[in-house]
Amino acid sequence: MSEHGEGIRRRTKSVTRAEDIQAEEQKIRKKQPDKPCHKPRDSLFSWNSGFNDFTGFINWAFLLLSIGGLRLFLENFLKYGIRIDPLQWFYILTGQDDSGDEHPSLVLILYSCVPIVLCLLTEKGLAVEIVPNMTGMTIHIINLLVLILLPMVVIHVKDGFSLVGASFVTTLYSVLFLKLWSYVQVNMWCRMARQNAKGNLRRQSLSYSNLKSNKVNLHDDDSSTEDLKEHKKLIQYPDNLTLKDLYYFLCVPTLCYELNFPKTERIRKRFLIKRIFEVLIGVQIIFCVIQQYMIPSVKNSLIPFSNMDYTLATERLLKLAIPNHLAWLCMFYIMFHSWLNLLGEILHFADRSFYGDWWNANNIDSFWRNWNLPVHRWALRHLYLPMIEMGYSKSVGSLAVFFISAFFHEYMVSVPLKTYKIWAFMGMMGQVPLSYISKSVERAYGRRFGNLVFWSSIILGQPLCIMMYYHDYIVVRYGESLLEDYAHV
Amino acid sequence: MSEHGEGIRRRTKSVTRAEDIQAEEQKIRKKQPDKPCHKPRDSLFSWNSGFNDFTGFINWAFLLLSIGGLRLFLENFLKYGIRIDPLQWFYILTGQDDSGDEHPSLVLILYSCVPIVLCLLTEKGLAVEIVPNMTGMTIHIINLLVLILLPMVVIHVKDGFSLVGASFVTTLYSVLFLKLWSYVQVNMWCRMARQNAKGNLRRQSLSYSNLKSNKVNLHDDDSSTEDLKEHKKLIQYPDNLTLKDLYYFLCVPTLCYELNFPKTERIRKRFLIKRIFEVLIGVQIIFCVIQQYMIPSVKNSLIPFSNMDYTLATERLLKLAIPNHLAWLCMFYIMFHSWLNLLGEILHFADRSFYGDWWNANNIDSFWRNWNLPVHRWALRHLYLPMIEMGYSKSVGSLAVFFISAFFHEYMVSVPLKTYKIWAFMGMMGQVPLSYISKSVERAYGRRFGNLVFWSSIILGQPLCIMMYYHDYIVVRYGESLLEDYAHV
Repeated sequence: MSEHGEGIRRRTKSVTRAEDIQAEEQKIRKKQPDKPCHKPRDSLFSWNSGFNDFTGFINWAFLLLSIGGLRLFLENFLKYGIRIDPLQWFYILTGQDDSGDEHPSLVLILYSCVPIVLCLLTEKGLAVEIVPNMTGMTIHIINLLVLILLPMVVIHVKDGFSLVGASFVTTLYSVLFLKLWSYVQVNMWCRMARQNAKGNLRRQSLSYSNLKSNKVNLHDDDSSTEDLKEHKKLIQYPDNLTLKDLYYFLCVPTLCYELNFPKTERIRKRFLIKRIFEVLIGVQIIFCVIQQYMIPSVKNSLIPFSNMDYTLATERLLKLAIPNHLAWLCMFYIMFHSWLNLLGEILHFADRSFYGDWWNANNIDSFWRNWNLPVHRWALRHLYLPMIEMGYSKSVGSLAVFFISAFFHEYMVSVPLKTYKIWAFMGMMGQVPLSYISKSVERAYGRRFGNLVFWSSIILGQPLCIMMYYHDYIVVRYGESLLEDYAHV
Repeated sequence: MSEHGEGIRRRTKSVTRAEDIQAEEQKIRKKQPDKPCHKPRDSLFSWNSGFNDFTGFINWAFLLLSIGGLRLFLENFLKYGIRIDPLQWFYILTGQDDSGDEHPSLVLILYSCVPIVLCLLTEKGLAVEIVPNMTGMTIHIINLLVLILLPMVVIHVKDGFSLVGASFVTTLYSVLFLKLWSYVQVNMWCRMARQNAKGNLRRQSLSYSNLKSNKVNLHDDDSSTEDLKEHKKLIQYPDNLTLKDLYYFLCVPTLCYELNFPKTERIRKRFLIKRIFEVLIGVQIIFCVIQQYMIPSVKNSLIPFSNMDYTLATERLLKLAIPNHLAWLCMFYIMFHSWLNLLGEILHFADRSFYGDWWNANNIDSFWRNWNLPVHRWALRHLYLPMIEMGYSKSVGSLAVFFISAFFHEYMVSVPLKTYKIWAFMGMMGQVPLSYISKSVERAYGRRFGNLVFWSSIILGQPLCIMMYYHDYIVVRYGESLLEDYAHV
C-alpha cells in the first residue's frame, strides 16, 4: 500500500518539494509557444486523487431500478395480460364463493363484545371489592385464554370461512387480547396504588392539592392557566371503568391503556381526506400487485420447491421477492401511516408515533424495535418491564417478547390457512440468532453492512415463508398426488 | 397547506403555548398510577414531523438492484444456458472465420506508419524552410484527408475484414487523425512564434536568461535547484522534430501534442500490475455480457422493431438497456481508467486526468465535457479556441465540435458495419437540442432531475442506436425477405 500514498504530483521530476518551484515551472511552461495543456494529475478513481463524490450514482441506482421495474411490468403484461379483477376480491372479502349466505366471520366479530363486557364487569367487581382479587384475576386469565383460543377452534371446526375473513377475525382477536391484557394490568396497577395509598391517603391528597395551588400561583398571570385547570381534571381510577372509556381504548390506535390519553383539539379535514384517499388507493395497489405479480410467481414456484430444484426455486424466490416486498412496503405505509393516523384523527388521539425510522436500522433488533411501535410499546410496558421487575434477567425478558411475537405471527397465519406448520413461528424465533449475526456484522463491517443485512432478511425472508406456506397449503388441500401430476407435465 | 404547518403538539388541549405547562403536565401525568406512555407526537411521514433521514433507502435501492440482477442472471442461465465461448472471440478478433489466412486489418495497421513519416518529413521541410508554408500545409491537409478516407475505401472495397478488426482499424485511424492534426497545429504555432521573435530575438533571449538566473538565485539554498536546472532544459522548437518524439506522442494517452510533457520519475510496479489485471479481467467481463445478455436481446428485438410492435419493442429495448449500460460502464472504466493509466505508467506520462466526474453531471453538456477528457481537451485546444480566435461565435464553435464528434462516432460505427446509415451521427447531433432540454429541466426542477435526464439519455439512447444498426445490418446483409420469414414463424 506504500505506493498508494505517493501521488503523481510528488513523483514528477520537476515538481518535487517547493510549491514556488511548481509555480515558476508553470510560468516558464506557459511562455512556451506550444500552449501546453498537461500537468501532473491523478485519475479520479485512483486512491491518491482523494476524490469521493459519487452522489450521481444514487440517482443512477434509482433510475436503473425504475427501468428494470418498467421492463418487468411490460414483460408481465405481455405474458399474462391483465389479471386484476376487483370482483374476485369482492367475493373473497365477503366469503361468498365459499359459504353462500352464511357469514361465520361476521358472527365471530360480533361475538367479540362478550369477552369485552365480561372483562369490564370483572374490573368493576374488583374495583368495588365485591370480587376478591385472586378470583378476579383468574376470571381475567380464563377470559383472555378463551378469547384467543375461540377463533382457532371455531375456524378449524366450522367450514365456510373465507381466507380473508378468517385472517380478519384472527387479527381482531389478537389485537383484542393485547388490549384487554393492557387494560387489566393498568387497572391492577391503579388498584395496587389505591391500596398502598389507603393508609396515608390524607397526606397524599394534601400534597396533591398543594401542588395544584402552587401551579395556579405560578401561572396566574398566564392566559393558559385555564387550559391547565381544565387539564387537571384527570380521570382517577375507579371513574374510568365505563363501557364508553373501554370502547374508546379499543378503537384508538394503541395497545397500551392509560386513563388519560393525550388528545387533539380538532379534526384536520384536509389531513383526514388525504389519509382516506391513501387507504382507498393503497389497498387497490396492494390487491393489484398480489393478483398480477405475486399469485403467478407463487403458483410457478410450486413445482421447483417440491422437487428441490435449487436454481429454479431461487429464481422463483427472487422473482417473488420484489413484488412481495413492494406490497409489504405499501402495506406498511397504508397500515401504519394512513390507517392509524386516520383512526387517530377521527378519535382525537394525539400520539401518532406508530413507527420509528426502521429503514435506517443497522441491525435486526433495531428494526423490530422500530417498525411496529404500538406492539413494541405494549411488549415493553406489559411484558418485558414487569418481567424485569419480577426478577428475570434481560435476555429472558427479550426471549419472552420474541416468543409472544412469534406465537402471534404463527396464530395470524396458520389459523386462517388451517395449516399448522411452524414456518412463521420459526421465522420469528430465527430472528434471535439472526439479530446476533447482524450485530456482529455491524460491529465488523460498519453500519452500512448492518443495514444491508437487515434489508436482505426482510426482502428475502418473507417470500421464503410465503412459498413454504403455499406449498404446504396445496399439499394439505389437494394431496401429494397433485404435485406429482404437475411434475410429470 | 395551512394545515400542514400546525403539528399535533400545538393542537392538543393541554399543551397550547407555554413549555413549562407541558413540563408540569408531564410531571402530573408521571405521578399517575397507570404509568402513561403516550404523548402528543406526529408520525415520521407527516410533513410537520420535520423528519427527513431516509438514507437507509439508498442501501435498499442498491440491494433491490442486486437482487433483480441476480434474478435476471438466473433466468438468463435457465433460458439460454452458457453462451460464453472464448474461442469464438479468438476467431472474431483474428478474423480467421471470414478470411482464412489474409489479415487486411493488420496490413492497414502497419500501413499507418506511412502518413506518420510523411507528416514528420513535411514538418522537417517546413522547419528548415525548404518547403514553403502554403505547400507544406496543403501536403498536411491532403495527408490527413487520405489518412481518414483510406480505411473507408479499403474496408468497403476489400472483403475479408472481421467486424472487430475493422473497428480497431477505424478507431486507430481516427486517433491518428486527431493526434497528427494536433502535431501539425502545435508545430505551426511554434513556427509562427519563431518568425515573430526573429526581429527581436536578442532581447527575448536576454530576458529569458535573466529569468533563469533570478530563479537560481532564489533557490540556491534549496536542494531542488538541481531538479529545476534539469527542468529548464526544455526542448525548443525545431529540436522536437524527431521520429522518437513523434512516436512517443502517438503512444502517450493524450490527443494534444506539446513539446515537453510532464513526466513521472519511476514506474509504480504495484499500480501497473493492478491496471494490467483490470484490463485482462474487464475485457473478459465485457465479452461475457455481450455474448450472454446482449446478443440474445438484440436478436429477439429484430421482429418487434421491424413490425413496429411498440409494447414488445419497448420491452426488448429496456431488456437490452441494462446489460448494454453495464457493459458500457465496464468499458468506460477499462478504457479510461485501466488502459490509459497503464499506458501512462509505462511511458512515464504524468497527466492522468482522463475523465471528470461525469456521473454527477446535471446536464448533457456537462457529461460531454467530462466523460472523455482527451477528446474534450483536443476539441477545445485545436478546434473551438482556434475558431473563436478566427472570429466565429461561441455557438458556431460548439456546433463545429459536435459536428466533428458526430462524424467520428458515425465513422467508427458505419465503416466497420458497412451500413452507411446516419443513426450514430443523428444521435450525436441530437445531443445539441437534448442539451437545451436537459439544461431547462435542470433550471426548472433542480440538479437532481438534470442528473436523471442525463442518465436516462445515456441508458436508453445507446440500446436504441444498437437496435437500429442491427436491424439495418440484417436488412442489408440478408434482405427484407428474411425479416418476413421470421415474422411468419
